[in-house]
Amino acid sequence: MGKKYLVVGGVAGGASAAARLRRLNEEDKVIIFERDPHVSFSNCCLPYHLSGTVEESESLVLMNPEKFLKQYNIEARVHNEVVDIDREKKEVKVRNVLTGEEYTESYDKLILSPGAKPIVPPIKGIEDVNVYTVRNVIDIEKLNKSVKEMGKCKVSVIGGGFIGVEVAENLREAGYDVTLVEAMPHIMKPFDYDMAQILHKELHDHGVNLIVGDKVSAFEKDTVILESGNKIEAQVVVMAIGVAPVTELAEKAGLEIGETRAIKVDQNYKTSDKDIYAVGDAIEVHHALTGRTTRLPLAGPAQKQARQVADHIHGRVVRNTGYIGSSVLKCFDYNAASTGLNEEMIEAFNLDIKYEVVKVIPGDKVGLMPGCEPVHFKLLFEIPTGKVLGAQAVGKGNVDKRIDVIATAIKFGATVDDLRDLELCYAPPFGTAKDVVNFAGYVATNILHGDFKQVREKDIRGLVQSGACIIDVREKDEYELSHIKGAKNIPLSELRQRLDEIPKDEPVYLHCRSAQRSYNAVMALQHLGFENVYNISGGFLGLSFYEYFNDQTTDREMIVTDYNFD
Amino acid sequence: MGKKYLVVGGVAGGASAAARLRRLNEEDKVIIFERDPHVSFSNCCLPYHLSGTVEESESLVLMNPEKFLKQYNIEARVHNEVVDIDREKKEVKVRNVLTGEEYTESYDKLILSPGAKPIVPPIKGIEDVNVYTVRNVIDIEKLNKSVKEMGKCKVSVIGGGFIGVEVAENLREAGYDVTLVEAMPHIMKPFDYDMAQILHKELHDHGVNLIVGDKVSAFEKDTVILESGNKIEAQVVVMAIGVAPVTELAEKAGLEIGETRAIKVDQNYKTSDKDIYAVGDAIEVHHALTGRTTRLPLAGPAQKQARQVADHIHGRVVRNTGYIGSSVLKCFDYNAASTGLNEEMIEAFNLDIKYEVVKVIPGDKVGLMPGCEPVHFKLLFEIPTGKVLGAQAVGKGNVDKRIDVIATAIKFGATVDDLRDLELCYAPPFGTAKDVVNFAGYVATNILHGDFKQVREKDIRGLVQSGACIIDVREKDEYELSHIKGAKNIPLSELRQRLDEIPKDEPVYLHCRSAQRSYNAVMALQHLGFENVYNISGGFLGLSFYEYFNDQTTDREMIVTDYNFD
Repeated sequence: MGKKYLVVGGVAGGASAAARLRRLNEEDKVIIFERDPHVSFSNCCLPYHLSGTVEESESLVLMNPEKFLKQYNIEARVHNEVVDIDREKKEVKVRNVLTGEEYTESYDKLILSPGAKPIVPPIKGIEDVNVYTVRNVIDIEKLNKSVKEMGKCKVSVIGGGFIGVEVAENLREAGYDVTLVEAMPHIMKPFDYDMAQILHKELHDHGVNLIVGDKVSAFEKDTVILESGNKIEAQVVVMAIGVAPVTELAEKAGLEIGETRAIKVDQNYKTSDKDIYAVGDAIEVHHALTGRTTRLPLAGPAQKQARQVADHIHGRVVRNTGYIGSSVLKCFDYNAASTGLNEEMIEAFNLDIKYEVVKVIPGDKVGLMPGCEPVHFKLLFEIPTGKVLGAQAVGKGNVDKRIDVIATAIKFGATVDDLRDLELCYAPPFGTAKDVVNFAGYVATNILHGDFKQVREKDIRGLVQSGACIIDVREKDEYELSHIKGAKNIPLSELRQRLDEIPKDEPVYLHCRSAQRSYNAVMALQHLGFENVYNISGGFLGLSFYEYFNDQTTDREMIVTDYNFD
Repeated sequence: MGKKYLVVGGVAGGASAAARLRRLNEEDKVIIFERDPHVSFSNCCLPYHLSGTVEESESLVLMNPEKFLKQYNIEARVHNEVVDIDREKKEVKVRNVLTGEEYTESYDKLILSPGAKPIVPPIKGIEDVNVYTVRNVIDIEKLNKSVKEMGKCKVSVIGGGFIGVEVAENLREAGYDVTLVEAMPHIMKPFDYDMAQILHKELHDHGVNLIVGDKVSAFEKDTVILESGNKIEAQVVVMAIGVAPVTELAEKAGLEIGETRAIKVDQNYKTSDKDIYAVGDAIEVHHALTGRTTRLPLAGPAQKQARQVADHIHGRVVRNTGYIGSSVLKCFDYNAASTGLNEEMIEAFNLDIKYEVVKVIPGDKVGLMPGCEPVHFKLLFEIPTGKVLGAQAVGKGNVDKRIDVIATAIKFGATVDDLRDLELCYAPPFGTAKDVVNFAGYVATNILHGDFKQVREKDIRGLVQSGACIIDVREKDEYELSHIKGAKNIPLSELRQRLDEIPKDEPVYLHCRSAQRSYNAVMALQHLGFENVYNISGGFLGLSFYEYFNDQTTDREMIVTDYNFD
């Protein structure tokens, strides 16, 4: 006689768990309960319906109950909500949300995969605006229908996380007038401020009205009111400030809830009840780099957890190596990927980690190849061990590849020496002989070795304003096109002949376009007896991206004569 | 007083070593000797001049002696060939190839980076054809000029390695009538036969006259004569059968030459003379996976070795982790990347390794996204340890990313469990929640766990001809479009109702499009008491690519009703 397994929630985690349970046994009864009309839809593709990239909303639905039954012999009951768990009797109470009918179903094991839901705080006046959220196919159909019907409407997207940015991008691609509001100083938490600035510029350049560091304080009819007092016209408001794990059912059943307010599970994704498992956006997980418990609402981890639960139920040994968090975003012509820790996470979690940062901006392929684009690549590593902690990459080309390599390296406890030595694929259309990752590894080992000192983009404004000695080692024509105000131009090619122009009694800050020529200059000067020499990390290109958005959207004084993004 | 370092050869290895030497010390004298007119040109970009992708040949030259002097205070003497080394006196004899003048130059340390040269065997009649090789900028200019001047000429490229395929591709892109001749059964040694078949098809589809398994036996005026007796008209012949390390100078100096006929070096790239180092295509290296000594003429390793040599000279501890060999090729619309060992290497080196193979063909991004393309992904792993040995990926999309991840994993001794658990970046435009690499890891752990058995594409022809029971579990409409001759169609969705149609007393071979649905079917049948069930690795899609080229170019009988590459 087979066992009976019930699965609550039929999207990423639930559907994967059910399919794996079937593959491991043909006799067992497997039932999925889904409150909504769809099982197994492509969550992450939802925003792409708004631009028509995914033309038909039906195509977002990957499986249906009929297919589940025919192909997997799995019963998927849509419009059926599990409303209660009787842990003693090992049965659930289910409500058919269409008919209101209620019934019970017993289980041997129960798997909870209820997901997370968009947070919609009770902001004053919220009932006076058309508010939408993006959680499922119905949501996106509603939002899409609404903007299409209104025609030339103004949309405010509140929240600059993945969903917010993707919704803003896709609505903008569809021609709408879009404002994106982020309460924090920058969008996209997986990235630090400096890296997010590139995305700010891209959104701005594509006509998204991006507002950062300002918060919704109230709504009025067709209007978003910000804490700054600014008002934004908006016939449509999309709330995307974040998601909260769905824990009502688990809480009601007395299952333990963790410190992050998500369902607490053990190393095998078992809840505090030995016959109930939980996976996906509703649970909290172990962060492999911080040792902390965290929430990680991502599709990949959900699917892996689901499979592991099915394996564990069937007595297979599973391995839980914790999570580091890897993600990627498309934002118009830019791609942005990250893995592991960033500077702001280390600060926010108050982690006792000493680290150093490397920023390099090499080409994503050989410069002679068509479509070669700079990769803005930032690497964090621990001091003194050199252990890789995290990385972020933003660029128009293949940035995801570089971050996947770092994500892989981190899983093995890699150091920056390891990155330097990696043998990555090279041919001119794909990369450079010294790939971005190797290159970052080289610079990091140099820093670890104490070869040179650096300052960061964020330091430059202060240095300029205090009249520090900044030397631009690019060639004269490059300097004349645009440069840091007050910077002196001594091209690398003239450096050794013009040493007398460089002060020895004060700090000297060197830069070129991307910090590579200036690195050579810094090394030369140090050997020549200049002791207080700094390389400006990221160079003029990095600085341009760092400063541009703020200079365009506020009345700050520019610290460069002009921007140069080439 | 500074030291004096001489570098022989000014391309990848030599130029990198010199620049690093300068960065580590400002006083030392560093001189590069280069016989040819150019230092530091982009070797790997040479073929792209033929298609005009790199329009001006001058742009292939990345540095020149003037820049070396100005930016790095390095003397680069072009047209200067080192013809002799006096190891006792620690000096080299140099000949100015333009003036014939000879002089000596002393050294503290000498770095040899002479590279490799194209092999041109003394084939009968070779003097009667226009033979070109591709080693440097002069070579490619000559070849390009020659075909351009002839206009509608026919070109035969001999040798299907990286250079051969890239030259054939770029000449074809430029509109020439191109034949590519490969003596072995398939092109591109880093790939196994099954993977190379995809490239064969691509070359064939783009009008390259590809001939494999046939060898040049002689030349006549405007004609290549093959061992088969076939004759090919060719006004231009490009010899690209391989390269040989340039060892004359080293041999003359009595430096030890290794078993592979390349210069022998120790772990610090030091030759048998303690003051002479060697790097790049001219040396042999340690293969980290086989323990064997091998040659690896790739730009990435050359640059890394160069830097390590400079570091070692300056007393820095360097680390030599050996090499696994990672590479990538663009071939028209396809990309092909590989790392580590393939099946044919294991056989050729007679390695005592037990291994298993996984072939999966998932999409490179979410199917709903524009431009989603299958990735043909092949993974080799050791039995019983599950240690990852190598991988190959071929597809129109981002295959290099997946191979870079494997290359990284291999460096850390990863097992297939590790691949399964990797946290890679996911968003619909970039991949799938269960990325190609994870997916291969899942299948590999299943095989390692003994969950199911498989047969390979190469086995299918024999199975079809012997009338084996092949079951196609795709839906009826897919089957009707094209299928394996004699295969029975039992869709996965009808499988459990039609068990009586499946024999229990003989082996049963199941497939679908890419082997994923058939995997579910195999698992179900096993649980239902069918003991002799096999999944056909790669499915109908893999088989189509495997068989197509041979069926199109020979008079073999097709074992499918029609091909289907969708």
